[in-house]
Amino acid sequence: MSAACIFCKIIKGDIPSFKIFESDKTFAFLDIGPLSKGHSLIIPKHHGAKLHDIPDDQLAEVLSVTKRIAVAQGLENYNILQNNGRIAHQVVDHVHFHLIPKPNETEGLGVGWPTKDADKGELAKLLEEIKSKM
Amino acid sequence: MSAACIFCKIIKGDIPSFKIFESDKTFAFLDIGPLSKGHSLIIPKHHGAKLHDIPDDQLAEVLSVTKRIAVAQGLENYNILQNNGRIAHQVVDHVHFHLIPKPNETEGLGVGWPTKDADKGELAKLLEEIKSKM
Repeated sequence: MSAACIFCKIIKGDIPSFKIFESDKTFAFLDIGPLSKGHSLIIPKHHGAKLHDIPDDQLAEVLSVTKRIAVAQGLENYNILQNNGRIAHQVVDHVHFHLIPKPNETEGLGVGWPTKDADKGELAKLLEEIKSKM
Repeated sequence: MSAACIFCKIIKGDIPSFKIFESDKTFAFLDIGPLSKGHSLIIPKHHGAKLHDIPDDQLAEVLSVTKRIAVAQGLENYNILQNNGRIAHQVVDHVHFHLIPKPNETEGLGVGWPTKDADKGELAKLLEEIKSKM
């Protein structure tokens, strides 16, 4: 827990939330600034700013809870998004997964996809670098 | 497994890939149309088009593998994205999690965030609907 963290305060109940789900490891609530109806946040209770700060066992349940909330809403089209770092659009420094329904073109997450062709030789070199550190 | 699925063919080895990781449940490889250097795909081996099609036990390892690949690259800024449905930017109908490094403003994922204020009464009503189906 971090005393200054708004999500830790929500978990403790010091700040009210529209709580959907709670277990020993996981907490889920409606986003009050939604991109679309049903926009939810699923968070590990363990405090950490970024994904790589959270122990594996505290992450194991996150996707099954996310799935349950999607199913409860009968969603067919939706995005799951988890941002790390200000430049990557993270605002609150406690790991959170957005479940964002995509009901139409204008509501929900906007996805910009500035793809480029990759040099296969560069990819092969990068692959060896990553694998050597796994 | 789906005979027509390109990701199932990659898992089987019928189509080559820049494979980073493989276990009994999970497969990870470099995206060959990256948004940024190190753009990786982490997928459950279990074939299913959307998150809600995948059994919980086949999802439990996905985030820890994603984390390992982020750590191996020494990433600080990155997005995790999983798309469900054409309108939500899904192209291949086998569940996949994008790990997309965000090195600067122009490379990596573009995030559009058309937020709106929510009516608290509407949120409270929606919350009860969702909880009743969890």
